Amino acid sequence: MKKSYAVLGISLAAIVGMGVLAGSIKGKEEERQAINQSPVVKEKGIEAKNEVWGQYFPREYNSWKLTKKSDNINDLLKAKPQLIILWAGYGFAKDYNAPRGHFYAVQDVTNTLRTGAPTGPTDGPQPAACWSCKSPDVLRLIDEKGEKDYFTGKWARWGNEVVNPIGCGDCHDSKTANLKVSRPWLIRGLESMGKKMSDMTHQDMRSLVCAQCHSEYYFDTTKETGPDGAEKITNTVTFPWKNGFKGEEVEAYYDSINFKDFTNPLSKAPILKAQHPEYETFASGIHFQRGLACADCHMPYKQEGAVKYTDHNIGNPLDNVASTCLTCHQESEAEFKRVVAVKLERKEELQKIAMDTLAKAHLEAKKAWDSGATEEEMKAALQDIRHGQWRWDYSIASHGAFFHAPEETLRLLAQANELGQEARIKIAAILAKHGVIGYEAPDFSTKEKALALIPIDLAKEITAKQQFQNGLLQQWQKEAIDKGLLNPQSREGMSNKSSYSGN
Amino acid sequence: MKKSYAVLGISLAAIVGMGVLAGSIKGKEEERQAINQSPVVKEKGIEAKNEVWGQYFPREYNSWKLTKKSDNINDLLKAKPQLIILWAGYGFAKDYNAPRGHFYAVQDVTNTLRTGAPTGPTDGPQPAACWSCKSPDVLRLIDEKGEKDYFTGKWARWGNEVVNPIGCGDCHDSKTANLKVSRPWLIRGLESMGKKMSDMTHQDMRSLVCAQCHSEYYFDTTKETGPDGAEKITNTVTFPWKNGFKGEEVEAYYDSINFKDFTNPLSKAPILKAQHPEYETFASGIHFQRGLACADCHMPYKQEGAVKYTDHNIGNPLDNVASTCLTCHQESEAEFKRVVAVKLERKEELQKIAMDTLAKAHLEAKKAWDSGATEEEMKAALQDIRHGQWRWDYSIASHGAFFHAPEETLRLLAQANELGQEARIKIAAILAKHGVIGYEAPDFSTKEKALALIPIDLAKEITAKQQFQNGLLQQWQKEAIDKGLLNPQSREGMSNKSSYSGN
Repeated sequence: MKKSYAVLGISLAAIVGMGVLAGSIKGKEEERQAINQSPVVKEKGIEAKNEVWGQYFPREYNSWKLTKKSDNINDLLKAKPQLIILWAGYGFAKDYNAPRGHFYAVQDVTNTLRTGAPTGPTDGPQPAACWSCKSPDVLRLIDEKGEKDYFTGKWARWGNEVVNPIGCGDCHDSKTANLKVSRPWLIRGLESMGKKMSDMTHQDMRSLVCAQCHSEYYFDTTKETGPDGAEKITNTVTFPWKNGFKGEEVEAYYDSINFKDFTNPLSKAPILKAQHPEYETFASGIHFQRGLACADCHMPYKQEGAVKYTDHNIGNPLDNVASTCLTCHQESEAEFKRVVAVKLERKEELQKIAMDTLAKAHLEAKKAWDSGATEEEMKAALQDIRHGQWRWDYSIASHGAFFHAPEETLRLLAQANELGQEARIKIAAILAKHGVIGYEAPDFSTKEKALALIPIDLAKEITAKQQFQNGLLQQWQKEAIDKGLLNPQSREGMSNKSSYSGN
Repeated sequence: MKKSYAVLGISLAAIVGMGVLAGSIKGKEEERQAINQSPVVKEKGIEAKNEVWGQYFPREYNSWKLTKKSDNINDLLKAKPQLIILWAGYGFAKDYNAPRGHFYAVQDVTNTLRTGAPTGPTDGPQPAACWSCKSPDVLRLIDEKGEKDYFTGKWARWGNEVVNPIGCGDCHDSKTANLKVSRPWLIRGLESMGKKMSDMTHQDMRSLVCAQCHSEYYFDTTKETGPDGAEKITNTVTFPWKNGFKGEEVEAYYDSINFKDFTNPLSKAPILKAQHPEYETFASGIHFQRGLACADCHMPYKQEGAVKYTDHNIGNPLDNVASTCLTCHQESEAEFKRVVAVKLERKEELQKIAMDTLAKAHLEAKKAWDSGATEEEMKAALQDIRHGQWRWDYSIASHGAFFHAPEETLRLLAQANELGQEARIKIAAILAKHGVIGYEAPDFSTKEKALALIPIDLAKEITAKQQFQNGLLQQWQKEAIDKGLLNPQSREGMSNKSSYSGN
């Protein structure tokens, strides 16, 4: 009899336990259903304010907010002073830092010396297009004004409109919350390669929303005279993908339209500035070719109770190896990091060689000009510098190229150096012809030394920028708040850093 | 009742079936046990005749015999004429082919113009050491005569002794058939790195038996005077591993002992000839680092009945993707081959650039000498050529380097080209100093054109070689047969090919 009671007791306990468990499952199920209902953030148009999305998607929003912690300013011109020679005559020679988190996108583009110190909406060195990847407000503006109007005029024109940093509305449809490519230049880029958005799978979309911004681009410039007789300049972000993603293919595209970003004032070479071809580089690597998307490693799944969501604190997958790499690879975290570190070392090694070579080529070309070289004599060498610098820049301008496509990156760096050295050999012959033998380029091994070699007044740039920050920028922010575009609380805890502020 | 009979019938059938199966299992078990008994091929010493091993290990022997089918002569001097300039003054500029199967090892070393046309045991350009990786007879000789005596004197000294091609006794103990490293220079090489054979696992051994020959080496030369007053020269195969396997580490080792393989007569640069550092290259790649051995891909398991054995038809794993790569990787064979082909393309691309650069450097250095350059002026450029050529050669001299360590291979090729270009820039300044501006190296784009640029009389070499083949070589073979060292049937079906015979 005792045994029977015991069995009964255990059975009852089990039934109670199962009931509790069922209740818990039901609770989680309700939570899941509530979440899966996908609330409408905005019925029509684009919601650019990230904190509004955060009311409906707290987990994703809170993880996105953690990009605030990635706030380190790493002055790359100091780390790699060759850049100052290579980019002489272009904004990047003034200021170039390793990227901070998405949270800082608007602040960083405002702080960088590259965008100068405009005094009003029609002033400053940069076109409107320079906002294009910094904010969902850009999508809102395109939606409201049309793409052409958005791209017309100066960067300062939209200073009181583009105020919320890269966030929810950049990748998600405000009504359905589905992944959405809203930047028309990506769609046109894919079409130029014979690809259609309608063929894209959800997995494709998990890379393509990133590719809207993490891609190589140039500004297609058109001019027209408005009804008021004033010249209107439109700079449209355009992806140079027609020939393919390979460095030489993009180079051939730029050559075919005779495009240059700037002329280096030392060598007078017509230079292409590579932007950040993450998507193109990733596509040439094995992880993409095996079907992975950006989000697989940069936005791993997280589990909270019954809810699985993607981590929107987008950064370095190596910070979170257990949830990223090690879900497929069977090594210890230490061994995995060791292998990746060697890849980085190899890239850094070849990158240094290529940068030193190309910087010398610019300086030696300057010496050739100074010694009386003619355009006809210099033409072939300058073309080598253009192509060499392009291949270097395209191979390393994107984050993590050394990992996304290690072999392709090394190949391009080797090609870059080869072209730079060929230019130097041509220039040595020109120099000798003009009586200069054994010329050695001046020292560019520190930021200060390199800056002294190029036509630039950095102190003046910094002073002007600080005036802008204390003046027009404050006005932009006030106007944006007044218009209801910016919620000042959304900037709480935002550290204000730049390469020149000493923070 | 009918049902009961049916059940009984099925049961009886099952019992009979199980009996048959058990009998079959027992048969296979006996076969397995017989095989596992590991017959003694030779109680004492080394059995160099492969066909003797074949009596005990028919499956392994028959698969080894299939290396006979890999008999294509691919004249690499024709495919890559730059090699003729790079190796000017060294045997490889006379004759260099893609490798044939193990079955041809003795024939190939005998046929190559590199070993010249000796007329007797103390004649010819090469030392005894040139047999070291061609035959298990080498191990037999070392066992019988001692290592030092084996390494003393000329290659022709052992022409009637080394007659069986690379085979069973090279990797297996003749008594136990276990894997065995019998070449003492590998053991010393490992010891120089602080490694002990006694620590090696069976999996290590599945690479190390290959590493006996598939490694970088040089000849450590010593001279002494014998009791008869005659000078005795000993060339001992030595692995330069003390500093590590990396290209620069081996280079530093060679520099530290002031070693060179030859002087290029064009540039007068002291050149290092890389041999075939497969083991070192494989060790720097991810497959080795994940625990794979050479045999895992080059000797996949085969199953015949109950017997599992390793395929001894050692060659390209891509010829057998299903049994090699695809046992771990989950792609289609076509996709797998596509990925590997891209790796090869990248290597070929950077290899061509580096070879062109280095060949030009040699020819431009010659012009500098011809124009009156001094040793002091040329020193730094020649050191760059030495290091550049070493890094090129070390990166690609081993089979499959592009696959074994794709990133490391590309890195070294980029370094090789960088050093070659630095040499060219230095030489351009020297040339200019001596009044030569804009010199362009002569055309070396075909085997004929390249041969015309170096001091060589290939027709004379070929005639002498053919006399040797019809004379002394025939005598060697007869003597070996008479001594019972060579079974003439073992050479049946051996095609006699060389780059110069027109076969």
